[in-house]
Amino acid sequence: MRAVTVTPGVAGSTTLRDVPSPTLDAFSGGRGVLVRVLRVGLDGTDQEITAGEYGTAPPGDDFLILGHESLGVVEEVGPAVTEVAPGDLVVARVRRAGTSIYDRLGMPDMTTDDEYWEHGISRVHGFLTERYVEEPEYLIRMPAGLREVGILLEPTSVVEKGIHQAEEIQRRLKVWEPRRAVVLGAGTIGLLATMALRVRGVEVITAGLEEPPHLNADLVEALGATYVSTRQTPVPQMAREMGQADLVFEATGFSPLVFEAMCILLGKNGVIVLSSVTGGSKRVEVPSDAINLDFVLGNKVMVGTVNANREHFERGVRDLAVAEARFPGWLERLLTHPVHGLESWEKAFELLGEPGVIKTYLEVAPLP
Amino acid sequence: MRAVTVTPGVAGSTTLRDVPSPTLDAFSGGRGVLVRVLRVGLDGTDQEITAGEYGTAPPGDDFLILGHESLGVVEEVGPAVTEVAPGDLVVARVRRAGTSIYDRLGMPDMTTDDEYWEHGISRVHGFLTERYVEEPEYLIRMPAGLREVGILLEPTSVVEKGIHQAEEIQRRLKVWEPRRAVVLGAGTIGLLATMALRVRGVEVITAGLEEPPHLNADLVEALGATYVSTRQTPVPQMAREMGQADLVFEATGFSPLVFEAMCILLGKNGVIVLSSVTGGSKRVEVPSDAINLDFVLGNKVMVGTVNANREHFERGVRDLAVAEARFPGWLERLLTHPVHGLESWEKAFELLGEPGVIKTYLEVAPLP
Repeated sequence: MRAVTVTPGVAGSTTLRDVPSPTLDAFSGGRGVLVRVLRVGLDGTDQEITAGEYGTAPPGDDFLILGHESLGVVEEVGPAVTEVAPGDLVVARVRRAGTSIYDRLGMPDMTTDDEYWEHGISRVHGFLTERYVEEPEYLIRMPAGLREVGILLEPTSVVEKGIHQAEEIQRRLKVWEPRRAVVLGAGTIGLLATMALRVRGVEVITAGLEEPPHLNADLVEALGATYVSTRQTPVPQMAREMGQADLVFEATGFSPLVFEAMCILLGKNGVIVLSSVTGGSKRVEVPSDAINLDFVLGNKVMVGTVNANREHFERGVRDLAVAEARFPGWLERLLTHPVHGLESWEKAFELLGEPGVIKTYLEVAPLP
Repeated sequence: MRAVTVTPGVAGSTTLRDVPSPTLDAFSGGRGVLVRVLRVGLDGTDQEITAGEYGTAPPGDDFLILGHESLGVVEEVGPAVTEVAPGDLVVARVRRAGTSIYDRLGMPDMTTDDEYWEHGISRVHGFLTERYVEEPEYLIRMPAGLREVGILLEPTSVVEKGIHQAEEIQRRLKVWEPRRAVVLGAGTIGLLATMALRVRGVEVITAGLEEPPHLNADLVEALGATYVSTRQTPVPQMAREMGQADLVFEATGFSPLVFEAMCILLGKNGVIVLSSVTGGSKRVEVPSDAINLDFVLGNKVMVGTVNANREHFERGVRDLAVAEARFPGWLERLLTHPVHGLESWEKAFELLGEPGVIKTYLEVAPLP
């Protein structure tokens, strides 16, 4: 079968090649599930791996099949699989469990291992191919009614992990009823965070660079949230005009903003969730006494979040369903740039980060 | 009766004066408790208030009685008080409840009110006097066997609050068994944090400025912890040689260290607790991309902590008792500079921050 692969660490090595088809016996005990790939979303991680910045091939291979945002349909299951059945739509989790206590408790997203096992990223092949085999614990069933937007589950799971971390942390307060959130960033993650918070009834202000009129601003406002362009209203002005937030969700990728937001935008007892993977080397001067004092006197929290576990994928399915019921058609508006066929992978990669592109994805096979 | 008072906001206004004696009927419903003051500890907050930096007089008064670290003995109780009895040793909590939901749930330390009610600091008189009246819910009973070190309970409660916040936050991990902690700062708070973590069986590395041989270093080592002088071993070298920590407790008052420690010293899933009140205006350049990335990929948390509620005082009593049982005489070694009599208040204030001084306190009346 065909697959889009990369030689990890080698820029420009991405190619479409033939790879062996996977078989159910990849997992012992009759626990394999053969999935036919329908769609694969692309994001900045895929872009960075194709640029040779990171990525690791599976043991024994010298290439890595790309792709970690997937939607597929179960074709065949091993005799010991009861969780899914042929015909089920499924999304695969990205990180497989390692060996730490957190991996063994179902939280590989909190692993303390040094090495990760992540489909399409590190040591496990991804989904930019025709079929894959997984164990049922790593597959999330997607309701048929969400098939058109199912590809959004993986990025939604990252948002759910971040919000769940905030909720877990705020159990320290015994009562936490966040009224207002600020989402920094209006890309895919920022928009999905806005959605997940609006679904919870939180008042949301989402800040992006672009000045309205703009598609991303429209999408924010369509959720009953407020869009603010940081070009028009810098963060300090935003805080003065709108007041402080119980929750700040950072998804801009611009790290200096973190240190501005943690102080100015975050109210007492508040939590700032950091979700951006910032691989650069930016430095910034910060008012260290003031930030520290503000955190201390306000009992504030900052938490970093990466990846997601099964619970976050399940929460994502529920939020996608509620969003679809409450804001019909909104999720589909994020799917701005479908590209047909694995053979068109170059076109899909070229679209990443282009103006007007929210989500680009490859249609590997037609939806059932 | 006599009291050491300040005119808030006026440097050099501290004086010993006569004030009206308090009476049980200060609280309605027969809930007053009259306490005779035995000892009052001093710290940087008292120093800053006497310097006119902050502090607020109670409504109706133009002066504030100083002092928030106390040990006293109950002299008389109102008819509806069952919690304490005459002869009981007690320590008063510092912050009284305001109006926010957290105040009403017994967590005034997490108040979202703009104004605080804090004995000796803001809007309520302190304990640098002969007697005070309080409600029993604000009094913590101190076992007679801890009378000599009871004055340490208030600073210990601040440490307990910080550690408890870390524990509450780490419930997000379902399992958290911290093995190694780094305490930054070897002053009173740093030493008490070292004690509280050693009592919990955690391996502790405590960093101070001073080079051994030095009393504070000796006190750290006496707990079975490791003392490191940051003059001899800067933080990056410390991290390289000793590895990363599950918990970092910051108590130096030097804010640039926060941004160094949060990245280099803190391990995956770790928590850094900020406890220093840094009223200055220091600025520092930080590697913002690297700090953000490290927090994200490591699911790390930073939390600010201030004040303490009843639970933290109660935990403090238990930890003082265990410390006394396990490291007999250690707590008393912190009480380096007793000063006799309210009339000697100037001498006690002069000792604050002097070399070799860990804890200075006024002996207002002899221990029973």
